[in-house]
Amino acid sequence: MDSWLAIVQIVQRGRMGRFWWVNHKQTFTQEHKGGYLWSPKREVNNARSQFYDNMRRARRGDGVLSYADGRIRAIGEVTDEALEAAKPADFGNIGEYWAHTGWLLPVSWRDVVNEVKPSAHLSVIAPLLPKKYSPLRSKNGRGNQKAYLAEISEDLYLALGALASGTIGDGVPPADRFAVIDEYEQAQVQALQSDLTLSETVLRTLMDARLGQGEFRARLLASDKACAVTGVRDARLLRAGHIKPWRLCQNAGERLSELNGILLVPTLDHLFDRGLMTFGQDGLAKFSSSFNAADLVSLKLNHARSGYSLSHHEEFLEFHRSEVFVV
Amino acid sequence: MDSWLAIVQIVQRGRMGRFWWVNHKQTFTQEHKGGYLWSPKREVNNARSQFYDNMRRARRGDGVLSYADGRIRAIGEVTDEALEAAKPADFGNIGEYWAHTGWLLPVSWRDVVNEVKPSAHLSVIAPLLPKKYSPLRSKNGRGNQKAYLAEISEDLYLALGALASGTIGDGVPPADRFAVIDEYEQAQVQALQSDLTLSETVLRTLMDARLGQGEFRARLLASDKACAVTGVRDARLLRAGHIKPWRLCQNAGERLSELNGILLVPTLDHLFDRGLMTFGQDGLAKFSSSFNAADLVSLKLNHARSGYSLSHHEEFLEFHRSEVFVV
Repeated sequence: MDSWLAIVQIVQRGRMGRFWWVNHKQTFTQEHKGGYLWSPKREVNNARSQFYDNMRRARRGDGVLSYADGRIRAIGEVTDEALEAAKPADFGNIGEYWAHTGWLLPVSWRDVVNEVKPSAHLSVIAPLLPKKYSPLRSKNGRGNQKAYLAEISEDLYLALGALASGTIGDGVPPADRFAVIDEYEQAQVQALQSDLTLSETVLRTLMDARLGQGEFRARLLASDKACAVTGVRDARLLRAGHIKPWRLCQNAGERLSELNGILLVPTLDHLFDRGLMTFGQDGLAKFSSSFNAADLVSLKLNHARSGYSLSHHEEFLEFHRSEVFVV
Repeated sequence: MDSWLAIVQIVQRGRMGRFWWVNHKQTFTQEHKGGYLWSPKREVNNARSQFYDNMRRARRGDGVLSYADGRIRAIGEVTDEALEAAKPADFGNIGEYWAHTGWLLPVSWRDVVNEVKPSAHLSVIAPLLPKKYSPLRSKNGRGNQKAYLAEISEDLYLALGALASGTIGDGVPPADRFAVIDEYEQAQVQALQSDLTLSETVLRTLMDARLGQGEFRARLLASDKACAVTGVRDARLLRAGHIKPWRLCQNAGERLSELNGILLVPTLDHLFDRGLMTFGQDGLAKFSSSFNAADLVSLKLNHARSGYSLSHHEEFLEFHRSEVFVV
């Protein structure tokens, strides 16, 4: 048994994390079992939603209250940044009107000891609910229809955690980032492989590009010649990564264009690929706020900037900034 | 047609590469078709051999004369450093007395225009043969029985290249480093998977360790905590690599021991894994001489040293220095 004390201790460790409340609605079972949260990126009418945007604001170590069927049923810890992912196959017919692509946030869930009903404790809870983007209606204690992932205060998080008497059991292993990306890519690969309009050569060229190899890499080496940040020219140290990820490209042109490629040494390629680094329009490297400043100094990356103009990559960099970069 | 002129131009480019002569003997067909050279690491009696040690002295861009059946039959360019690899399955029964593990050197071969017999030009060639470790006996122009890869002078290389009238055709694609390593690892994986004495749990632990994941990584993070060079502590930036490569480990103990693991940021993990960097007993990072000094400065790696004592890894580091590091 894992007591409520452990959760309080996490909070008291002094980390500057956030607290969240998710209204699962129909997908509690799938999200709980799979160790994640999933949301579309926007509303069906393409409007932005604070509740969906919050998926990308969550960080490792943040706490999440899981609310479904009028009860707090689990408490989770975010284990990784959100990543772009296909709507889980497990959802079946649920949310058919949602886009096929959204944000997936890995979370390690543990069941609560007592499934507490917030509506039964409204006098305690109502004053602690956020004024804007609240997960519950303060009048009747029912879930706010539009809410998905809502930010809540530490006080509300602790109050509900105490009412639930903490969590029990080992919890569900969180969704693995690489497994999710891999599955997404495999789906793209299979779609291409079963596309009878593609010749063997085109297919091979596309597959090579996926791994940053072949013609894609050769053209990028010919045009950019060196790591975009360090200026390293030794090809053994240069990775040819996609700016707009291969799995998210709309067509072969985007997958093969050297304008959608960037040469980086492995550490920077790793950061860029995971959205932990991007470039401003001024060529200055920007790092995710989730980094400890000391680590950037250790990597000698504070004040890093591109060693050559990246303006020819700007169209794809704009996508990277808005859709891949983890602010 | 690719003329002799191109080869002379490579030489005249002023690079400080070396020139080699290989006596293929029985394995010409396999090595020519596969785009490589393969040798055991030592003589059958376990004595060192200069001809085998030369496999690890060859560098990208070096030239190689291919000699078999008394003739120079091809000229190649080394495309990558030698790597440890299983004896090619293509060899079949050839060299049954050789060890199962040796050096594989990727080479891009092109056929010569005229297959020149060195023995027919002994008056030109004999004075140019090396005094020690010669590929040919200067008396009769026959292959030296013990020779495999011999270093020759630029003069001898150019003289024989001219007699052969240069090369013709597009050449054979060289063996791919990653494909070779992958094949080697797959063989290990299959051997483990078919080992009925292993439980499911042990097998999974071993497979996780191969990818620097799971228990292996967790224990290494717990003991070493930071990148051995940069001191970076963010686990998202730390790779858990094997010092003695997973595929070369003798048993599960070596594969799972945190003493055989090293935490490095991706660029350094990449260099260390490929043998392009190692550590001296004094903790100073050593880089392969194949690097351009300017690139090491760009990476801010000149004078890099371990940020903490590596003495607990010394047994495995000794293996890395002698068997993995590309001097």
